[in-house]
Amino acid sequence: MTRSPQNTTYVYLFSEVEFVESRLGGDWDAVRALLGGKGANLGDMTRLGAPVPPGFTVTTDGCKAFLAAGGEFPRGMWEQELAAIEAIEKATGNRFGDAGNPLLVSCRSGSKFSMPGMMDTILNIGLNDEVAEGMVGRTGDPRFVYDLYRRLVQMFGSVVLGVPDRVFEAVLSDRREKAGVQVDAKLSADDWRAVTDQFKQIIQTYTGEPFPSNPLEQLRLATAAVFGSWNGKRATDYRNASGIPHDLGTAVNIQTMVFGNMGPNSATGVAMSRNASTGEPALEGDFLFNAQGEDVVAGTRMTQRLGDLEREMPEVYAEFARIARKLETHYRNMQDIEFTIERNKLWILQTRDGKRTAQAEVRIAVDMVEEGLIDRNEAVRRVQPEQVDFFLHPQLEEAARAANKPIARGLNVSPGAAVGVVAFDADTAERWSRDDGKAVIMVRPETKPDDVHGMLAAAGILTAGGGRTSHAALVARQFGKPAVVGASAIEIDLDKRVFAVGDIVVSEGDWISIDGTNGSVHLGKLETVVPDLNSPYLLKLLGWADDIRRLRIRANADYPRDAERAREYGAEGIGLCRTEHMFFESDRLPIVQRMILASSASERGEAIADLLPFQREDFTGLFRVMNGLPVIIRLLDPPLHEFMPAYDELVQDLADLKVRLRHLHTMSEIDQALDEIRAKQNVLDRVKGLRESNPMLGLRGVRLGIMIPDLPRMQARAIFEAACRCAKEGIDVQPEVMIPLTAHVNELKLQKRAVEEEARAVMEEQNIEVPHKFGTMIEVPRAALTAGEFARVAEFFSFGTNDLTQTVFGISRDDAEASFLMSYLKLGILPVNPFVSIDADGVGQLIELATRRGREVRPDLEVGICGEHGGDPASIALCHRLGLDYVSCSPFRVPIARLAAAHAALTDD
Amino acid sequence: MTRSPQNTTYVYLFSEVEFVESRLGGDWDAVRALLGGKGANLGDMTRLGAPVPPGFTVTTDGCKAFLAAGGEFPRGMWEQELAAIEAIEKATGNRFGDAGNPLLVSCRSGSKFSMPGMMDTILNIGLNDEVAEGMVGRTGDPRFVYDLYRRLVQMFGSVVLGVPDRVFEAVLSDRREKAGVQVDAKLSADDWRAVTDQFKQIIQTYTGEPFPSNPLEQLRLATAAVFGSWNGKRATDYRNASGIPHDLGTAVNIQTMVFGNMGPNSATGVAMSRNASTGEPALEGDFLFNAQGEDVVAGTRMTQRLGDLEREMPEVYAEFARIARKLETHYRNMQDIEFTIERNKLWILQTRDGKRTAQAEVRIAVDMVEEGLIDRNEAVRRVQPEQVDFFLHPQLEEAARAANKPIARGLNVSPGAAVGVVAFDADTAERWSRDDGKAVIMVRPETKPDDVHGMLAAAGILTAGGGRTSHAALVARQFGKPAVVGASAIEIDLDKRVFAVGDIVVSEGDWISIDGTNGSVHLGKLETVVPDLNSPYLLKLLGWADDIRRLRIRANADYPRDAERAREYGAEGIGLCRTEHMFFESDRLPIVQRMILASSASERGEAIADLLPFQREDFTGLFRVMNGLPVIIRLLDPPLHEFMPAYDELVQDLADLKVRLRHLHTMSEIDQALDEIRAKQNVLDRVKGLRESNPMLGLRGVRLGIMIPDLPRMQARAIFEAACRCAKEGIDVQPEVMIPLTAHVNELKLQKRAVEEEARAVMEEQNIEVPHKFGTMIEVPRAALTAGEFARVAEFFSFGTNDLTQTVFGISRDDAEASFLMSYLKLGILPVNPFVSIDADGVGQLIELATRRGREVRPDLEVGICGEHGGDPASIALCHRLGLDYVSCSPFRVPIARLAAAHAALTDD
Repeated sequence: MTRSPQNTTYVYLFSEVEFVESRLGGDWDAVRALLGGKGANLGDMTRLGAPVPPGFTVTTDGCKAFLAAGGEFPRGMWEQELAAIEAIEKATGNRFGDAGNPLLVSCRSGSKFSMPGMMDTILNIGLNDEVAEGMVGRTGDPRFVYDLYRRLVQMFGSVVLGVPDRVFEAVLSDRREKAGVQVDAKLSADDWRAVTDQFKQIIQTYTGEPFPSNPLEQLRLATAAVFGSWNGKRATDYRNASGIPHDLGTAVNIQTMVFGNMGPNSATGVAMSRNASTGEPALEGDFLFNAQGEDVVAGTRMTQRLGDLEREMPEVYAEFARIARKLETHYRNMQDIEFTIERNKLWILQTRDGKRTAQAEVRIAVDMVEEGLIDRNEAVRRVQPEQVDFFLHPQLEEAARAANKPIARGLNVSPGAAVGVVAFDADTAERWSRDDGKAVIMVRPETKPDDVHGMLAAAGILTAGGGRTSHAALVARQFGKPAVVGASAIEIDLDKRVFAVGDIVVSEGDWISIDGTNGSVHLGKLETVVPDLNSPYLLKLLGWADDIRRLRIRANADYPRDAERAREYGAEGIGLCRTEHMFFESDRLPIVQRMILASSASERGEAIADLLPFQREDFTGLFRVMNGLPVIIRLLDPPLHEFMPAYDELVQDLADLKVRLRHLHTMSEIDQALDEIRAKQNVLDRVKGLRESNPMLGLRGVRLGIMIPDLPRMQARAIFEAACRCAKEGIDVQPEVMIPLTAHVNELKLQKRAVEEEARAVMEEQNIEVPHKFGTMIEVPRAALTAGEFARVAEFFSFGTNDLTQTVFGISRDDAEASFLMSYLKLGILPVNPFVSIDADGVGQLIELATRRGREVRPDLEVGICGEHGGDPASIALCHRLGLDYVSCSPFRVPIARLAAAHAALTDD
Repeated sequence: MTRSPQNTTYVYLFSEVEFVESRLGGDWDAVRALLGGKGANLGDMTRLGAPVPPGFTVTTDGCKAFLAAGGEFPRGMWEQELAAIEAIEKATGNRFGDAGNPLLVSCRSGSKFSMPGMMDTILNIGLNDEVAEGMVGRTGDPRFVYDLYRRLVQMFGSVVLGVPDRVFEAVLSDRREKAGVQVDAKLSADDWRAVTDQFKQIIQTYTGEPFPSNPLEQLRLATAAVFGSWNGKRATDYRNASGIPHDLGTAVNIQTMVFGNMGPNSATGVAMSRNASTGEPALEGDFLFNAQGEDVVAGTRMTQRLGDLEREMPEVYAEFARIARKLETHYRNMQDIEFTIERNKLWILQTRDGKRTAQAEVRIAVDMVEEGLIDRNEAVRRVQPEQVDFFLHPQLEEAARAANKPIARGLNVSPGAAVGVVAFDADTAERWSRDDGKAVIMVRPETKPDDVHGMLAAAGILTAGGGRTSHAALVARQFGKPAVVGASAIEIDLDKRVFAVGDIVVSEGDWISIDGTNGSVHLGKLETVVPDLNSPYLLKLLGWADDIRRLRIRANADYPRDAERAREYGAEGIGLCRTEHMFFESDRLPIVQRMILASSASERGEAIADLLPFQREDFTGLFRVMNGLPVIIRLLDPPLHEFMPAYDELVQDLADLKVRLRHLHTMSEIDQALDEIRAKQNVLDRVKGLRESNPMLGLRGVRLGIMIPDLPRMQARAIFEAACRCAKEGIDVQPEVMIPLTAHVNELKLQKRAVEEEARAVMEEQNIEVPHKFGTMIEVPRAALTAGEFARVAEFFSFGTNDLTQTVFGISRDDAEASFLMSYLKLGILPVNPFVSIDADGVGQLIELATRRGREVRPDLEVGICGEHGGDPASIALCHRLGLDYVSCSPFRVPIARLAAAHAALTDD
């Protein structure tokens, strides 16, 4: 086009993008700012030689000038639009308003950032009564033409002239009724002609002016409407909410209409440049002959596979394949391409990066590295950490999911699908699984430590109550059991052994399927698919991630089987072994309860001694698996009441026993019942003594170790007896003993002395030295604040970010999610749930401070985090920024953490 | 004495102290280090012209040289001792070993710091058979002489020669038995002579050597023994425990013996230079003619008042009075002086600062300022803040206390004495007090919010359970009610309406007396005395303190009557008005419960609206009293379940109702019972819904305000309606609205908007402007860590150090004191209870950080603390160091806080 040196240029043809780019110094971002995202991309495709229907962009500068002038076209803009229309007429051979050979165009907004709420699209600009009749003559298809025409009038009326769309919809609905049809597709040419007339009358009535029949008038009004919509309420609100600047303005794109429904040599379709499910490098897609884009998307007609196009129109197909490859190479990513064939002529309407499954994402990233399209950093960057989760869990088969709508939804707390029969208690779940080999879904109102054996036996867990950090959620994630919790629509009747959702009643033993990835619950036995963690593509990608990341990844594992999985998934050590989980095992719990109920120090001592062999075996198993890698063992942490029956239950039991007593007659029965009552009363008294107003802040962690000094000594002895035994077997053991919940350095000093004395004694008895470390959790603010003193005693810190979050915020994990925390997220008081991602400002600040002060005192201090946050990508990024040495997470999160750590390192560079 | 320039001087006469001091450059601390505390003071008294029995000190340098040489006397030391003995002989006219005129001396250790566990005292050195017989001849009193002699042998044997003292005690016991007497005083001269012989035989048998009869030998061995005892186990342990350096060494003091029991012109006694109870400036004391010091102390003989000495020996008395005045003037403090008169000759044996009551302390300090002995700073410094407490509460009369041993002890949580009849529940306490005008002691297992009306009505509170920060303790301190809690020996039987301590049974209505100052519980109606807070001495002293201190003192007060007391006690504003206390009042609680039980938003809104007039009256009352001073009002803080009956009680009630149902017959009775059951069940369900695992970290504070937005709005409206009304009355109102438990600045922003909207609306309605402030409590670590952001929204910070301590340590106040916290204090893990004095390293660090960051953003940010710590002197000192603007405490602690703040300022200078 000819430029006038006096006037600013507001209009560029798609084919002028190269010129624009060079004028803007090759800054593509500036091109996008000037032409908008859509305009820039249409230009870009045009430049690549893709057959894009010709058109032009009115720039964002034009918009700004228009708005600044109070809605007047700036000097020269309209003339430039007219010139551009002429250029298109020349390129297409069609002319605006020419009944024999009409040019029809679309008008679309397009700002730098995608913005819902902006004025969208007006199609078929250029139509009027005369042009329409001409087209009918040329195509012989009045239904097609008047459908186009009424769309123009409708869009123009609602978008440009502000007529409420429901007025037009009422006309359509009335027309369908009159014609006795259900859908628009069944309306006839006459119907559309009548509708078009009615639409035009509505505009006349509503605006007092007739529908503009002049195509240039249509174009001018459409351009102004798009520009004006930039300052509309919806667009302004959206920008406020999204933080998009208000001074960017929008561009307007005017593009020639093409039609895939102009007969059997026309078609329209959508294609992916690679397989979106598997990532295989083959063009895939769906299309329809003689159809519009809507028809392909709507699914009202059975689409054809792209192979059919290859057979029917080999040349067009070949051209399309060539262009698809070109676009993919250019954008260095799999493309999702919309195309139309108008009478054997291929047009590319749009291309964008294609959506794909996690599996495809990984394969495509790896393939593209091999193809030289991207480098390894880019490949790693492209795969989101959470996508790795896909490879770790069975998934509901897509078709099965689509066919079986969920009966309820809950929180997706532990990913993966599980299919099994309903069991309402842990013993049933364990028995059915172990004895009958059944797959079981354990369904409970909520779970507690007593239920763990059932949860382990079950294929999946469903609870009606609880939040993201409820017991059920924590245990499920730890053991990789798919779980849906807080499915509050489910009403469980434990007496009748059923649960109900509205009218649906599910009995114990019935099949259900749950999806812990998205929180859905389905009736029946749905098909699942099992992705492959050992996918060579994933392994390759994770290997690259390992080369990039600087954070080490460890796993939280309490049992040898967890440790094995952790190693398999790439963990570089155990960051947290929770010894209390061992205490809950059925052969130990009675001993633990004996310890708690002991009425003398010696009785207690005996119980503790009885635990020693069990603990020694536990640790031996762990050390063998983790040969050559560090194992951090945390001494007993939870409050003792967790090992005892619940208070309320005991009160009920006791009441029941007393009622039973009334119905007994023989002396021996009565004596026996009285004995039971006494025993139960004894347990109740002790449990009552253990009750605390705020157990989270109570007698647990190191406090327990100080009040029951035999306990940490027994655990230390077990650790070092196991370590010495393994060392003698030639295993490289690296035990690290960790003290939980310390708040004052003096606590740590006392425990260190006890642990070191036991370690020394055992190593002398065994006559072998085992290198080891002594460290502490930092999980209350005071420990962080006095970390300098702590580092004089501890060789490593592990931040317990869950408890630290609770104490830094002063909120209780157990209560908050069920009460105010969700409201806080909804109200925007908190940007994210701090139990999901570490609160950088508060908790992160303490971690930073403690790490700095600790390292000032002990430069080689080892610092990491353990707990739920260790597997959260945002938290991992924070840990990387704060310079921590490692994160430790559930074995199932290890691959995710490896990738997230690499992402963090890449962001850094 | 002659000094040899070749030898170090190890021995100084008491009369040479001036020489020593000038040699050490006038450094009295160096004199004390060289001569030990006792030696330096004896020298000092000698220099002042007090008639001190002559003597000398062997220096700590001598000790160090002795120990360094492995127990050998360093060169010249013994020769110097001999020369000193000669000097004493010259001064007294008596000679060592001279049977006719013998010199007897004592030998005492004395290091720089007082050290129990060091070798103590050997009396009567210089006695042997020959000297004893000479003394018998001269005094005619063989019983006196052989009592002296056997004491020398016994002390020498046990202390110098290491014979176990129980061997000597066995001899004495055997002798008493033979003589048929109960006490040593009844033994005859022959008995003592025989005992002396037996003691000497024991020494011969035990050591293989005879008792050394040579006085110089006795002196040499005694000197060596004192030096040697410096490295004994007891002394070393004591130094380790007290942090006293091991290289100081001890001195040895050798002093002439004088005897007050040498006839009717001899006497011995103890005097105070001022009255130790009232502080009146008059010499007071007790003495006995012809007696030893022990007799005065032991109380076996009826002592005489010092006035008798004035009558009987006017010249000696005049000399004593002159010396007492001189010593007091010199030491600028009231003196506690031991004296002996040996045959009309006055000797001063010791002087030290006298112990006194709080009342005397205050008067003496003030008098001494008027007398020009000390300055005002010194007077303020001398009175310990806790001593002021004495003036605020009735005290048990000393004689009554002595005559009535406590039947139990508990924690002294709220000072003062209370006497009344026992009432076992709040309603009885209130009824007896209100209707019958009885003084009542409310006795409960523990207290809870329901009990407050009874606590207010009672004269004092006694509980069997609970700790220093239990509900009972907090409420008692708040209202200045004497209280003893955690008196675990008390077994309360609420059914029988009695409590028992062992065999003692106290019924409801019986009189008891409790002492909240020291935690004792007494049977019966003991006498009390009421000190006078308006003592002109105290007022003067507190006035001086106000001039010195830089911290402002405010009070925590919820009611006008508290506020009045606070002003009376010198508070400069209300630092914390807890609106929840108003919610518990009996006319409001039903409305509050209606609000909680509301099943719809409108029902809830109505209940909240019903509270408005009450709250407005509350605030009006406060503002009137606090005319011209700021009033910080905290919006509702506690979890809602505190306003409801306890869960366990409701369960029990419901069970009882159901049992009752079985025994009903008429339909109307049954219907009524069913209604009650339904109502109770409704309450129970709601209370169940409010139950939290960790209420301390639960739905309270600002969280409540956000979840029930009408509540803070109602409170803000009440505050501003009251403020506007008062302002119109011409009162200078200064309301400051405070939001509790904020953790994120967004919480504060939301609440500020609500409060400001209400404030603005009310002020517009009332057409008057009231200056006011908006601020926040900082009581969770996150608020402190992000204080910079907070200060952009808040105009003042008030640290809630109680909750901050709980969250910084991760310990629950309600549980910890009953479980591990006391053990932590015993084990030395924590130096002090952090709920009593602010933990400087952790909590203090956060306060410092938050204050600094807050003031960076808002330089005029007002910063203080409120809560229990506000009345603790150590915490006040910390707040002063951290540069806070004020502390706020219970009205009863205000005078204490004023003095403590002055102390802090003095320490600073």
